[in-house]
Amino acid sequence: MTPVETEFVTWLLDRIPADPRLEVPPGDDAAVLRPPAMRRTVVTVDMLTEGVDFILGPDCPPRAVGHKAVAVSLSDLAAMGSRPEAVFVAVCLPQTGGDVIARGLLEGIQSITAEHGCTLAGGDTNSWDGPLVVSVTAIGSVPPGRAWRRDGAQPGDLLVVTGACGGSLLGRHLAVQPRCREAIFIESRFEVHAAIDVSDGLSLDLSRMMQASATGAVVRLANVPIHADARRMSLLPGDTKSPLDHALSDGEDFELILAMPPDAAHALMAAAGQAPLDLPITIIGEVTAEPGLIAEDVDGTRTALAPRGYVHAFNS
Amino acid sequence: MTPVETEFVTWLLDRIPADPRLEVPPGDDAAVLRPPAMRRTVVTVDMLTEGVDFILGPDCPPRAVGHKAVAVSLSDLAAMGSRPEAVFVAVCLPQTGGDVIARGLLEGIQSITAEHGCTLAGGDTNSWDGPLVVSVTAIGSVPPGRAWRRDGAQPGDLLVVTGACGGSLLGRHLAVQPRCREAIFIESRFEVHAAIDVSDGLSLDLSRMMQASATGAVVRLANVPIHADARRMSLLPGDTKSPLDHALSDGEDFELILAMPPDAAHALMAAAGQAPLDLPITIIGEVTAEPGLIAEDVDGTRTALAPRGYVHAFNS
Repeated sequence: MTPVETEFVTWLLDRIPADPRLEVPPGDDAAVLRPPAMRRTVVTVDMLTEGVDFILGPDCPPRAVGHKAVAVSLSDLAAMGSRPEAVFVAVCLPQTGGDVIARGLLEGIQSITAEHGCTLAGGDTNSWDGPLVVSVTAIGSVPPGRAWRRDGAQPGDLLVVTGACGGSLLGRHLAVQPRCREAIFIESRFEVHAAIDVSDGLSLDLSRMMQASATGAVVRLANVPIHADARRMSLLPGDTKSPLDHALSDGEDFELILAMPPDAAHALMAAAGQAPLDLPITIIGEVTAEPGLIAEDVDGTRTALAPRGYVHAFNS
Repeated sequence: MTPVETEFVTWLLDRIPADPRLEVPPGDDAAVLRPPAMRRTVVTVDMLTEGVDFILGPDCPPRAVGHKAVAVSLSDLAAMGSRPEAVFVAVCLPQTGGDVIARGLLEGIQSITAEHGCTLAGGDTNSWDGPLVVSVTAIGSVPPGRAWRRDGAQPGDLLVVTGACGGSLLGRHLAVQPRCREAIFIESRFEVHAAIDVSDGLSLDLSRMMQASATGAVVRLANVPIHADARRMSLLPGDTKSPLDHALSDGEDFELILAMPPDAAHALMAAAGQAPLDLPITIIGEVTAEPGLIAEDVDGTRTALAPRGYVHAFNS
């Protein structure tokens, strides 16, 4: 490392508060964590790249990128019903202006880790003649056998969605609020058979959960929670999608879709509205034995529902 | 994800064998690990980028990159005296030819994880209009209070090096052999006060360990283990460095430097030569209360030793 890079890492390490979960803090060859007794370790990694996942600029400063990169990983932890414990952030910084970007990233990272009670436990700082790349590893914990898998949905389960979907591009795609507190609360009190977070689109992510579970779903369109941003977006000049279309396909909502036994789903509905569940909780449909998604209209008409959402480009 | 990307991930998941350490295997929002009883969790992340850390080509195919990316992280686990348990790999693939690269990467990753008894437990596959980026998170375990830190060296400790250093560019920089088996063996039988792996240069990494420990070191130059590659390299036309210079400054050796109480160091020396320590173990000097590195010549002459090694570019 050059003196400048060494200086930056020293500056960085000075800004990371001590945490009792760390037996060896950042700055060594690796961090050493004390895993919580009687809990499993949940691990997810997500890589975000400039030009694909974000474009640095006045609307998206480095601080927002730091926030988002950690938030999407914490959302994965929430989708497992787990509690965030620690995050690690590897970055490749553009050579010019890299230190300013790094300081902004750190602000965003520290604000969201503090909000969710997890610790920045380590990372890797590199630079290159290329755009910003941020890779986050988030580590959570969950009691044995309690992690919410994608493949546990059962016919007859009700499908529950937190919050509302659609129109995230109007700003929520950066100010991501992972449903960690909600997940921890629900995991501790209600039976959940399967879960996934809405990263690429409500209908697309629901179809993934149903495929993994070898089940299908009926979605009651009138019940789909449509975000105000979805309504605003469909009013924009040139927008051709209905608010419902936005809700079903926009993605980056980072809400949770849960498949729950009917009793548990109704009990959860009854608990909504008070902290930490001060957000809408909606039953949008139910799990079926037949694969595929079916949309049910208000008058009971059923049609096939094509999963739609954000697709990553990948050429062979 | 596009059909091609989904197909690739399905192909990938089919190739990852089940592992009893995983309560939830790859393919969900996150993996769930069963942490070994009575052990701490050791975590390290390393990001490698094309053009900085490697250049894809006939001498460096994707398989070699997959091997190296995991190997350098396992070397960090070894430098903590820990046992590798699981790795997670996030990649950003070039859009064109990305799936061929991905398959090569996977071969390299699976060969080294199998060799060291750890499991590929998850990852993130992205693509972009840019060079290959690979970020590895490696997770290990170590008994409580036993992790080898950088900052535990004490005056009077002897400095021990595994293997030999220098000339890694002749091929060892790709065929990295992390000293995991050796570290696990040494951790279980000998007292180690501090450790670091030689990633950037023997003298540079030694100086980092000494700085962290607020100590210095005398290095007996005649004892520095010089790799045959260092001798070969110094004979190349245009090379201006002596074999010793190569050994002290080349880096990417991924050997371990250990600071040990004299009794433990001598006991370790006596154990060398039989599996799993079938490699040279050398005492190269000792830790001093005075900061800084001192080189001691065969005739006892002492001069300041400037830490040298690979420096990462980083402009402000």
